[in-house]
Amino acid sequence: MSLIVAKFGGTSVASPERIKGVARRLAAMHDAGNQVVAVVSAMGKTTDELMGLANAVNADPPARELDRLLSTGEQVSMTLLALALEAMGYPAISFTGRQAGIETNGTHNRAKIVRVRNERILEALSAGKIPVVAGFQGIDANGDITTLGRGGSDTTAVAVAWGIDADVCEIYSDVDGVYTTDPRIAPRARKLDVVTYDEMLELSSVGAGVLQSRAVEFAKKWGVVIHSRSAFSEAEGTYVREESRMEQAVITGIAHDKSEMKVTIRHVPDTTGVAAKVFTALGENSVNMDMIIQNTSLDGATDISFTCPAADLPKAKETIEAVLPEIGAASYDVDEDIAKVSLVGTGMKSTPGVSARAFRTLGENNINILAISTSPIRLSMVIEASEAQRAVQVLHTAFELDSESVFEETQLSAEEIAAKMNKGR
Amino acid sequence: MSLIVAKFGGTSVASPERIKGVARRLAAMHDAGNQVVAVVSAMGKTTDELMGLANAVNADPPARELDRLLSTGEQVSMTLLALALEAMGYPAISFTGRQAGIETNGTHNRAKIVRVRNERILEALSAGKIPVVAGFQGIDANGDITTLGRGGSDTTAVAVAWGIDADVCEIYSDVDGVYTTDPRIAPRARKLDVVTYDEMLELSSVGAGVLQSRAVEFAKKWGVVIHSRSAFSEAEGTYVREESRMEQAVITGIAHDKSEMKVTIRHVPDTTGVAAKVFTALGENSVNMDMIIQNTSLDGATDISFTCPAADLPKAKETIEAVLPEIGAASYDVDEDIAKVSLVGTGMKSTPGVSARAFRTLGENNINILAISTSPIRLSMVIEASEAQRAVQVLHTAFELDSESVFEETQLSAEEIAAKMNKGR
Repeated sequence: MSLIVAKFGGTSVASPERIKGVARRLAAMHDAGNQVVAVVSAMGKTTDELMGLANAVNADPPARELDRLLSTGEQVSMTLLALALEAMGYPAISFTGRQAGIETNGTHNRAKIVRVRNERILEALSAGKIPVVAGFQGIDANGDITTLGRGGSDTTAVAVAWGIDADVCEIYSDVDGVYTTDPRIAPRARKLDVVTYDEMLELSSVGAGVLQSRAVEFAKKWGVVIHSRSAFSEAEGTYVREESRMEQAVITGIAHDKSEMKVTIRHVPDTTGVAAKVFTALGENSVNMDMIIQNTSLDGATDISFTCPAADLPKAKETIEAVLPEIGAASYDVDEDIAKVSLVGTGMKSTPGVSARAFRTLGENNINILAISTSPIRLSMVIEASEAQRAVQVLHTAFELDSESVFEETQLSAEEIAAKMNKGR
Repeated sequence: MSLIVAKFGGTSVASPERIKGVARRLAAMHDAGNQVVAVVSAMGKTTDELMGLANAVNADPPARELDRLLSTGEQVSMTLLALALEAMGYPAISFTGRQAGIETNGTHNRAKIVRVRNERILEALSAGKIPVVAGFQGIDANGDITTLGRGGSDTTAVAVAWGIDADVCEIYSDVDGVYTTDPRIAPRARKLDVVTYDEMLELSSVGAGVLQSRAVEFAKKWGVVIHSRSAFSEAEGTYVREESRMEQAVITGIAHDKSEMKVTIRHVPDTTGVAAKVFTALGENSVNMDMIIQNTSLDGATDISFTCPAADLPKAKETIEAVLPEIGAASYDVDEDIAKVSLVGTGMKSTPGVSARAFRTLGENNINILAISTSPIRLSMVIEASEAQRAVQVLHTAFELDSESVFEETQLSAEEIAAKMNKGR
């Protein structure tokens, strides 16, 4: 009835038992009359293990050889899944990135897909087979193997779905969809039936990591409908697509992110061009500044703060230490205990007063806002890390996102996952 | 100075540390002015582990998918070795079986090499690079990945050596060459400088498993000189080649083999065609009979014995049980405690009296011979397993193979191997 691309991540194929579980799931989809193409990641931690081996023999492995090495992980899982399907009596055929026609640019380790040749997959489907495609990999114009970077299998799945014009690209994982916020933080979080691509991208970029951002960008660009759902239940998950909802909430979800730090440069002379000099130097050294805060001038000097990812901190420190004497500032300090809480929703565009309501809510709860940034569909506020959980909860309630029911624990142990997978399928 | 193909087995590349040891060895060969091509097996027990995974998802995995799965093992080791060489400043390039131009027939799991395209390897050598080739794998005419069967990496190495017209194909392992007999059995065993292809084949087929028989057959057919040597010492090993030695010993080596069993069918009517009926049935059921012994008739009935590999025993039993009533024989029994001791040497052809000397030697030592078989360069005798070690020792002395020195323990622990590998190279 439908043409479905179904992607299973490393956790879902981490053992022969789980691979058999995935095969049963695909077989059920096939039996229900669908045509189905599977896309798989490497088993469990295989990619990390291969990377560890490479680093053990070469501290700085050349990208081309590294890609050849890493690509073997998915070749193992794709073959095992095809074998498992065959064992159940379902004709299957596995395809490497090359064989699936995933053509990329030549940027090894984080290649971009430039073309998808769909012939072999369509041919296999016509022959009644279940194609199993290796995620994460492709070939460049020289015929060399490339990999798409972390989480690249999501992107492969979307690209294949686009290439064969599938009805839906189902991304299976150990969570059952996209929530209004992290249920472990706010137990009244609600699973969303639908989010738009833009909302998903804003949610991803601020720490709600269900789907790879690149995959969502690709899906948006090419109009592929994504269905994020659980590998361990039959329940519907969350659709990611372009949609004009009839009844639209102002806010779709609330993300939080503790991965940034705040750097404050003290007592900067309040002269024209000084702040520009600092930020130009940081930009030239590839420090990704997110928010910038310049306090009111006092005695002809001011404090300048900015936030950046923790990973950029060494570069930021180096730059500031070089610039400090030049601009005549006194010192700098780093605050690691900050969190960014973001309201996301396309409804914000047409609803005035969102910021006001957010600020008032936090104010009434004595939560101090350190910095603010916005996009057309996002309002981000930096607060102290210790306040993050409470901030998410009060905003979740204030923007009427609370569900009737209280969420139970989502984190499953390996045994629980195995038990769920073997249950009745 | 020379063009060398150097093959390293699974033990030699079992860990990042050992891979670095192999890289140092290749680098030293390169520094000495040689052009060198490496051929590698999968790391340690990788192939067995992949086979285990396949069997866990599919009790009878289709050969084509299985070959795709197994071939990833060498893709990992070849890439890691290339990375290790690069890290030492030696330009390297890895080649899968496909890329190395190893073309095979379509018999998956035990494909035969039909052609070797040498262009890419020669091109890499011209560019000053060290090519690293995945052993054990090739492609068939459909472009599907094939594997060459157990020990296929030796065959790959010989095929590559032939394809690029190398001066020598060096096969590195944890033993330092071919011995007159197993040194663990006869401590006065001597390492041979040279054996001929035919001698090596006879020695291999009767249990002196240093080199894959198929690789030796291939080398004989195409005139490739093999040098079997230790991965852990610089000492010369044993050359396998066509050679007219000036000073030729009558016997080159003594092999022993405990992998066969003796089956005896009791009280078979001594009528024309009865024995033929038994052996035809066994042959049709693919039981590899090695030696056949028919005892003197007594009361119009006789006992018929044959030896066969232990692996063929279930088939043999099944066949005999079906045939027994038909031929009117009484019963059968199986003797697992036998050993085959074989004298091997091209010198046998031109030296009469070898058999007589062997039989006399065993007779003088009260070792009973149960069966005999011969080839132009081999004399095999089946004896009781408990006598095997003593038989090898007395024959080794009788045929003047004893060395001056007494062999010390050759079996190294993993730690000793690691220590040797890290020592000063």
